[in-house]
Amino acid sequence: MLEQLKEDVLKANKLLESSGLVKLTWGNVSGIERESGHVVIKPSGVSYKEMTVDDLVVLDLEGNIIEGSLKPSSDTATHLYLYRAFPELGGITHTHSLFATTLCQHGRELPCSGTTHADHFCGSVPLIRALNEDEVEDDYEKNTGKVIVEHFNQHEIKALEVPAALLHYHAPFTWGKTPMESFKNSVALESCAEMAVRSLQSQELPVIPAHILKKHYQRKHGSDAYYGQ
Amino acid sequence: MLEQLKEDVLKANKLLESSGLVKLTWGNVSGIERESGHVVIKPSGVSYKEMTVDDLVVLDLEGNIIEGSLKPSSDTATHLYLYRAFPELGGITHTHSLFATTLCQHGRELPCSGTTHADHFCGSVPLIRALNEDEVEDDYEKNTGKVIVEHFNQHEIKALEVPAALLHYHAPFTWGKTPMESFKNSVALESCAEMAVRSLQSQELPVIPAHILKKHYQRKHGSDAYYGQ
Amino acid sequence: MLEQLKEDVLKANKLLESSGLVKLTWGNVSGIERESGHVVIKPSGVSYKEMTVDDLVVLDLEGNIIEGSLKPSSDTATHLYLYRAFPELGGITHTHSLFATTLCQHGRELPCSGTTHADHFCGSVPLIRALNEDEVEDDYEKNTGKVIVEHFNQHEIKALEVPAALLHYHAPFTWGKTPMESFKNSVALESCAEMAVRSLQSQELPVIPAHILKKHYQRKHGSDAYYGQ
Amino acid sequence: MLEQLKEDVLKANKLLESSGLVKLTWGNVSGIERESGHVVIKPSGVSYKEMTVDDLVVLDLEGNIIEGSLKPSSDTATHLYLYRAFPELGGITHTHSLFATTLCQHGRELPCSGTTHADHFCGSVPLIRALNEDEVEDDYEKNTGKVIVEHFNQHEIKALEVPAALLHYHAPFTWGKTPMESFKNSVALESCAEMAVRSLQSQELPVIPAHILKKHYQRKHGSDAYYGQ
Repeated sequence: MLEQLKEDVLKANKLLESSGLVKLTWGNVSGIERESGHVVIKPSGVSYKEMTVDDLVVLDLEGNIIEGSLKPSSDTATHLYLYRAFPELGGITHTHSLFATTLCQHGRELPCSGTTHADHFCGSVPLIRALNEDEVEDDYEKNTGKVIVEHFNQHEIKALEVPAALLHYHAPFTWGKTPMESFKNSVALESCAEMAVRSLQSQELPVIPAHILKKHYQRKHGSDAYYGQ
Repeated sequence: MLEQLKEDVLKANKLLESSGLVKLTWGNVSGIERESGHVVIKPSGVSYKEMTVDDLVVLDLEGNIIEGSLKPSSDTATHLYLYRAFPELGGITHTHSLFATTLCQHGRELPCSGTTHADHFCGSVPLIRALNEDEVEDDYEKNTGKVIVEHFNQHEIKALEVPAALLHYHAPFTWGKTPMESFKNSVALESCAEMAVRSLQSQELPVIPAHILKKHYQRKHGSDAYYGQ
Repeated sequence: MLEQLKEDVLKANKLLESSGLVKLTWGNVSGIERESGHVVIKPSGVSYKEMTVDDLVVLDLEGNIIEGSLKPSSDTATHLYLYRAFPELGGITHTHSLFATTLCQHGRELPCSGTTHADHFCGSVPLIRALNEDEVEDDYEKNTGKVIVEHFNQHEIKALEVPAALLHYHAPFTWGKTPMESFKNSVALESCAEMAVRSLQSQELPVIPAHILKKHYQRKHGSDAYYGQ
Repeated sequence: MLEQLKEDVLKANKLLESSGLVKLTWGNVSGIERESGHVVIKPSGVSYKEMTVDDLVVLDLEGNIIEGSLKPSSDTATHLYLYRAFPELGGITHTHSLFATTLCQHGRELPCSGTTHADHFCGSVPLIRALNEDEVEDDYEKNTGKVIVEHFNQHEIKALEVPAALLHYHAPFTWGKTPMESFKNSVALESCAEMAVRSLQSQELPVIPAHILKKHYQRKHGSDAYYGQ
């Protein structure tokens, strides 16, 4: 089932690496079939080059695994939250692409500085606030989706008009009507962020809040690590 | 007809991507046969890798389609305006190459800072003013050509001596006696812009005028979008 | 003997070049089999593309050559010192990757500015002080390991929690439980350093102490040069 | 004749492009056989990919063509001057690699900021003064060699200890005992320049003197152009 969607999700995940947006396994693309409410997503910690259609994981919108023997991306709960909140979304991409992530680390939104931006995003790409200590401890990835959605609702931004968000101290998410469109918006965001970063200057490096440092290190290396297979 | 010119235009379009000047489908090259006044140009929204000679569009200088089943580049009217105003041109290239575009976004001309520049451009590459609200609403792409030509005429710059222009808030155009020469001038412009951007520092990001933001977003995503096939 | 370890060390060394972390022959990866205490390391001055398993050098922890006809990396004594001091290490990578090295040259530690860093390093990557004149003259590479270990012990940093160090005026070392993990930590360090360098600004270029300049030039070009075959 | 030297010169020229040091045809490598005093050099304006051994040009130290049907590099007179002045040289490389050229345009020497530099250059890479109007008009390329040699002699720098020079408003030259060594010194210079440029900041773009702008534009595009075939 979902053969075409799986092909699309696989192709977009492989493009993450070949386009230079992602190093190692630092990114993931998902897609959704709205009729069944089934989401196809990258498995956690698997290299893009070796990934096949059979490695992809299928879940329902509540996170129950429908198909697949590998663990889904550790960011799955963020994807699911966004799909539930924004019914117009068909695909979501998350990367740590270096220029967009630099803006995230510095806590800056990305204003529209030219037509390259205007071709893809109808206004500033917003900066989403960092999670507080409780939000990090209790359901970190789901809460990551929640603060994105809260920001868009509060500021009355339509998700498909500005299909991207910069997460403070973390990295960007982009989306679109299809997995490929969400990937293309990641390319556009990184290009616009590259032009912005080359123009900006800060004398001090930012420092991540300690509870986020601890959480990220622990989810990959702690005794209850849940990143990777 | 125009078989050699089509091969030249196809080759230069494919070089846009392999040279790293262009991501996704953000650029286009055209060429003209002066005898017939026929222009060969990239189709809109088609990927460079898959593009063949048969995808190219042939138009006359008034924009009537002579040959081809796909829509021509959405920037076609700018190319045609430049060919009509500067009879010495044989090829035109438009990209959003990131360093030249950064200068455009910041509203800076590119002075000659060294011999790499002097080898290609006999003086500063000028900054062309942004279009006003009326010029954007009514025939945006044609007016883009018009403000370039006005600047060159007003400042008595010869088009083949300084075969490039930086459009404020937008991106560069370059040209030459042939499509390949216009492409090479894009490479030279981007290299010189790269050296300039790495030297400059602005503390604030520029913000595009709202009417240009709206126009660019609408021509790709609005109800009357005319970008792509 | 050590066939699997040799394959792992060879693979990680070749990745140094294909990943863009290293130019020419400016980097090396080693691995250790803890039972025998045997270390496998890159030969000095051999190109990555042409390197085969048979070119690798096997030494014991005191630096006695067990196997191999080529000279080991000129940085071997640093690797051995680290393996002796940190028994939890299984692999070590040294590069002159340009962004991490820029931080080294400027004498800056790398604070944790975001989750890309937090995913790999549980706190700041420390800056290690430059060697003094005596330490450079007498057993330069061994002393390089010594100052790293002293810093980690003095500041009570656990080697596997912060598996990287920035050496003032020199370049980074990273490590891990395996050669591949040490390589991946080099990728992560360079990405985080890239984001840091793009944010920082110093008006003056640093100048290396004269005794380090002399030592490095001499070990490659002097009458007693010991770099390369 | 000179078959091995020709192979070496060809290989180093092709590496200029594949290593990313050079775009289009903006660089050249030569080599010399000291016994005969014969120099092998790249032909002018020929693409690296298509270049074969038969395209290379052989000249004596006075510039008389011994072999080859194509025009030699337009920078040949600079190479010959350096070979005559520095008998220890076996190969010379000229590029417009972007980071080293940025330093040239800004009129900055490159101090030794770390061991990457110290491994190749025993001290600062000097900035060579721009030619005056007479020197540009009368034998421009020969005078380019002359000011390099004058600087090294005046400051008592040994050519093989600091095998590189940064020409104000122009670009770098590097050299070595062989063509390959001169190429490797170009790689090292560009890496060190990259680290320097990423650290520096100038608020103003430099402007080339008018007589150099005119000369470079004319030698490529004027009525007596001598660049290319």
